[in-house]
Amino acid sequence: MLAAFPTLLDVYEARRRIGPYITRTPLHHYPRLDRLIGTEVYVKHENHQSLGAFKIRGALNVVSQLTDEEKSMGVVCASTGNFGQGIAYAAGVFGVQATVVVPENANPEKCESMRSLGANLILHGDNFDDCRAHCGRLSKEEGYVYIHSADEPRLIPGVATYSLEIFEDLPDVDVIIVPIGGGSGACGACIVANSLNPDVRVIGVQAKSAPGAYLSWKEGEIVEAKMETMAEGLATTVGFELTQGIMRELMDDFVLVSEDEMVEAVGLYLENTHNLAEHAGASPLAAAIKIKDSLQGKKVALVLSGGNLSRDHLRQVVA
Amino acid sequence: MLAAFPTLLDVYEARRRIGPYITRTPLHHYPRLDRLIGTEVYVKHENHQSLGAFKIRGALNVVSQLTDEEKSMGVVCASTGNFGQGIAYAAGVFGVQATVVVPENANPEKCESMRSLGANLILHGDNFDDCRAHCGRLSKEEGYVYIHSADEPRLIPGVATYSLEIFEDLPDVDVIIVPIGGGSGACGACIVANSLNPDVRVIGVQAKSAPGAYLSWKEGEIVEAKMETMAEGLATTVGFELTQGIMRELMDDFVLVSEDEMVEAVGLYLENTHNLAEHAGASPLAAAIKIKDSLQGKKVALVLSGGNLSRDHLRQVVA
Repeated sequence: MLAAFPTLLDVYEARRRIGPYITRTPLHHYPRLDRLIGTEVYVKHENHQSLGAFKIRGALNVVSQLTDEEKSMGVVCASTGNFGQGIAYAAGVFGVQATVVVPENANPEKCESMRSLGANLILHGDNFDDCRAHCGRLSKEEGYVYIHSADEPRLIPGVATYSLEIFEDLPDVDVIIVPIGGGSGACGACIVANSLNPDVRVIGVQAKSAPGAYLSWKEGEIVEAKMETMAEGLATTVGFELTQGIMRELMDDFVLVSEDEMVEAVGLYLENTHNLAEHAGASPLAAAIKIKDSLQGKKVALVLSGGNLSRDHLRQVVA
Repeated sequence: MLAAFPTLLDVYEARRRIGPYITRTPLHHYPRLDRLIGTEVYVKHENHQSLGAFKIRGALNVVSQLTDEEKSMGVVCASTGNFGQGIAYAAGVFGVQATVVVPENANPEKCESMRSLGANLILHGDNFDDCRAHCGRLSKEEGYVYIHSADEPRLIPGVATYSLEIFEDLPDVDVIIVPIGGGSGACGACIVANSLNPDVRVIGVQAKSAPGAYLSWKEGEIVEAKMETMAEGLATTVGFELTQGIMRELMDDFVLVSEDEMVEAVGLYLENTHNLAEHAGASPLAAAIKIKDSLQGKKVALVLSGGNLSRDHLRQVVA
């Protein structure tokens, strides 16, 4: 089974491919977070990535590898926001027309960003799964190449480049805590950690109110669950085959956090680091607070996966 | 006169010296800002720098060059926040005791950050100038080495490294707009631009309600003015000899912005880029909006010099 997973060499290849288009984001150490968690805490700032989220890394790695024929057909993807931005950007770089299907209640600022990047935006249905179904139809009817935001083998090595950067900057990292929507980020961390130091614990985080990936991981099979989180980056109802397979094999633990805990973590990031984190991006901090007893004496890297918090959500946090 | 200014080679030397301790920050392009200004707009993200502001670049370049004897005496500086954080950090790296004098109404989160970096913090007086006077006294009485936040020749080449990065990432930049408190950032931009492409226009920005540097630049001599801005990074009452000399010779233009214009620019950064900018950091965007007619057809780099907006100020912006 392990043989089929992406390897560290795939991650290096991805980096060579996407390097010119991405930002090598900093891993900053915050003494004030140390005091909060009671151990050494580092933040991987994917909110500083182009377009404010890690997704662009995976999107570029997929789109750059399309054949000329595929490029000429255009691509379609489903997204709650950040993946769509990444695909829109990557499509622009490689001269491909992109169509992004987003839920009707999508973050308006992410939508505006996708449009400004030249994507054809379609608002459809109530949630990510409705969007996925619509993508399938569009792909059949219009001939677009459908790029899945998790079950896509070329995605993970691209996303994994941020985990490689974590190890380069902090070779003695002990724990990496990463948000899970579809699971590409967590899989990237698992693959890199497994190659470089299998003792590093990779811990996934999901919302209590959308535990599809958690339940799938725990039960060892794809499970569907409720999806009621406001954290767009975590808003999935089910686990996906490819990412679940990797996480089941390599991920060490999984933590669920409440909506309130995420809101608190967004506020803590603002106050202690002056960074805007969206709820999914702040969820690893919420998880670290929750499991702080088990982190004592460890060097902990929190993946701040994205910073595209809408103005309405920010208003709630600051109020 | 020009011969005495720092050169591009000094900037390279500074980069070799401080490179291991700083983040090479991204220069991101934002199509949504393009539409706002009507031309191509790039943001130099010094809010992504360690400690959330550019000041660390200059502080490291000064402290790293102290003699062993100076290091053993400890350093003192006056700061409204970000320079003090930089000095506290640099002092920690090089094993030096740092004392920072801040105004009594200083941004509490910046103060907390300085303390957590190990600085001895002294709250003194109403403004930056009171702090400077107190530093002079402390230096005499306690033997601390006084590091000035503008009139310090080793500061500018360190700060100038961000301008070098702007040119590396956007060799065909036409205009750089930079906030001015003491003037080290603007001087860095002037020196780099003058070496690499003297046609590039460097435009400084100050608050209407604290125009000391503006008036000094305009009148060709050091002038004192009122200081009533809430933008900590711009809160100086007078121009300084060293930086004024460089700006007078090399800086192309100077724009004043109102408090309301800065608040609006903080909000625009939040909404269009999901970045937290402090008022000084947002002032180049406010200036660009003001002079947009003169920027058409140009590639414009805005220096987002720092992101350490206090929670109270953020609340005002979001409300």
